[in-house]
Amino acid sequence: MFATSITPTSSFTDQSLHQEIAASIQSLLANGQWASYRAPVLDHLKAEIANRIRVSNVRLCSSGSIAMELALRGCGLKEGDEVICPALDYPGNIRAVRLVGASPVVVDVAENRWTLDVEKMADAASDRTRAVIVSHLYGEIADVVTLRKTCDDRGWLLIEDVCQMPGGTIDHSPLGSFGHVAAFSFGGSKPITAGSGGAVVTSDERISQRITSYIDRPSELSPLSPLQAAVLLPQWRRLDALIDLHLLTLKNFVNKCGARFPTWRMPAMETGHQKRCFYKLPIQIETASHRDRGTEEEKNRIIAELSCAHISAGVSFRTIQRVAGGRGRMMGCKNAEAISANCFLLDHRSLAGSSESGERLLESLTSIYDRGLQ
Amino acid sequence: MFATSITPTSSFTDQSLHQEIAASIQSLLANGQWASYRAPVLDHLKAEIANRIRVSNVRLCSSGSIAMELALRGCGLKEGDEVICPALDYPGNIRAVRLVGASPVVVDVAENRWTLDVEKMADAASDRTRAVIVSHLYGEIADVVTLRKTCDDRGWLLIEDVCQMPGGTIDHSPLGSFGHVAAFSFGGSKPITAGSGGAVVTSDERISQRITSYIDRPSELSPLSPLQAAVLLPQWRRLDALIDLHLLTLKNFVNKCGARFPTWRMPAMETGHQKRCFYKLPIQIETASHRDRGTEEEKNRIIAELSCAHISAGVSFRTIQRVAGGRGRMMGCKNAEAISANCFLLDHRSLAGSSESGERLLESLTSIYDRGLQ
Repeated sequence: MFATSITPTSSFTDQSLHQEIAASIQSLLANGQWASYRAPVLDHLKAEIANRIRVSNVRLCSSGSIAMELALRGCGLKEGDEVICPALDYPGNIRAVRLVGASPVVVDVAENRWTLDVEKMADAASDRTRAVIVSHLYGEIADVVTLRKTCDDRGWLLIEDVCQMPGGTIDHSPLGSFGHVAAFSFGGSKPITAGSGGAVVTSDERISQRITSYIDRPSELSPLSPLQAAVLLPQWRRLDALIDLHLLTLKNFVNKCGARFPTWRMPAMETGHQKRCFYKLPIQIETASHRDRGTEEEKNRIIAELSCAHISAGVSFRTIQRVAGGRGRMMGCKNAEAISANCFLLDHRSLAGSSESGERLLESLTSIYDRGLQ
Repeated sequence: MFATSITPTSSFTDQSLHQEIAASIQSLLANGQWASYRAPVLDHLKAEIANRIRVSNVRLCSSGSIAMELALRGCGLKEGDEVICPALDYPGNIRAVRLVGASPVVVDVAENRWTLDVEKMADAASDRTRAVIVSHLYGEIADVVTLRKTCDDRGWLLIEDVCQMPGGTIDHSPLGSFGHVAAFSFGGSKPITAGSGGAVVTSDERISQRITSYIDRPSELSPLSPLQAAVLLPQWRRLDALIDLHLLTLKNFVNKCGARFPTWRMPAMETGHQKRCFYKLPIQIETASHRDRGTEEEKNRIIAELSCAHISAGVSFRTIQRVAGGRGRMMGCKNAEAISANCFLLDHRSLAGSSESGERLLESLTSIYDRGLQ
């Protein structure tokens, strides 16, 4: 049967979701929308995202990278304007800042955290500051409540990068609703995926108009296709349930890891008023976890051995200092260097599906961990 | 049955092609490639296009508009560089020239033609000229053989816009192989479609590298998704047969029109060494075709009545002078004004499929034509 033969590719999906995705595509092929510029399925997806993120404007696009560039263009930045950027982030974000003609000012992340240090922003501010980019990274939600307040007080625009964390919330408010504008990604490695794709959302009409005037030439520069919308729609409709299921799986996994791997540090799953979403699970290696090797070498060994066992793993984004080679004003990235140095990441797809695959992963990790102690 | 229930959306498609498209999508859903960044189906499509267009580099992307922007970025244009543009073209092309920082120099089309007047280019050249954009429009193939020679002689780069005419050839050489770089579109109105999508192709390694360094950030800025590639692959594999079938249908239709509508002028279908592809069929209204109305009014009446009869029709691109309001150097657009003034276009989808739909279209056109004579 067609509808039940989809291969799971994400811990966020299950068999009944696969059936919904197949049915959605089948309907699109039957009604001709797959070959149409203005397919209603695009509007249905926009409405679903607008409703869930509580924004008035959703622009679908072809990647998270273009979504972030559009968010920046929506802010109407001019040559010489400064944008505060986190010291640890997707490198395309700082490239996009330069591309639109603005200057990045790089602010460190907080100690032992992946996200922007709000306290350090004061030192970075100048009379040319116009906007702040904040990214929710590796399951950690940035302090966007404080950030938004600071931005509003100072007349800056907050650009929220939600590419890694669709469905995350703070006190039941969705991530993507805190920024003046926010970017989502539906790329192949992402929890909610169409192979590629993205969206930029805002409730600010001026930002929305600037985005429109940039990308409608008059055809759309970087559209999401109806086929992509058809596979995304069932995923967005089930977002909460999918993330709850994934968090439960992850919590079981992390609990077992805690007992077996005492020198590896894993993030907290319970976070009170926040609902997190782990696109990648970051694991910190403490220096006592190995004997003769340096931590960098130990991290690389673990990733290489995971790769041999066909388990998707990798390193975090490098610090902006390393990527951008010091262009822009650098306000320090000590904490960013520290947290990224000794960390490896497990892909959410490695934790996918059955408890069986979780057990296999644990076994592989155990033998890799034990070899590290030898 | 799933595979046979696709609605025809193009005169280029037939029932067995629909089955191939459905099977291609089904296989993608089953093997998980739909949710993957680096799906092999993307490489298969790239190889098919590279082979057919006889180029060494194919970059898939999300629209024809971004394909043209990437082509321009691939040319490495700098502030102050001039790009020769046709007076009648997709308006996004001249916007893209400005966006990359270059200055457009607008050259008229040849008399009674839709495409760039190669003879007039000499007057437009300056020591700042770096590139020429040429578009094959409304079934008419531009004189890219002469153009390429001129460009090579003068050290300019030729950017070929093939968005309307995938599969067209001159002496069996494919359009898209004449430019140093060329753009294709797979948008919803196009002969070969994925709802949206595009590709930029080149055999010039420097151009290819500049495109790569612009769009890989490191994720792709504006990718084509695996789902889109899956519906495009069967269409590209059948390109020649599809276009031959379409041309045959069109030739029958145009022959009948010639007898019935003596004051409407239709393009030649037989063109010797060229194989044309009509994305839209342009029909010129001669002034004797109506009594009291102006030609502009007559054209608008025809389009409105076709629209009431649910037949997709419209006007051509407006001249660049009208779109761009005189920015850039204007070398005249008299011929462009003349050819676009009295013309309406029938969408290829209006001519789709069965001889029955062709008959219905002819009936509608007959009553519209007769009302014009009253």
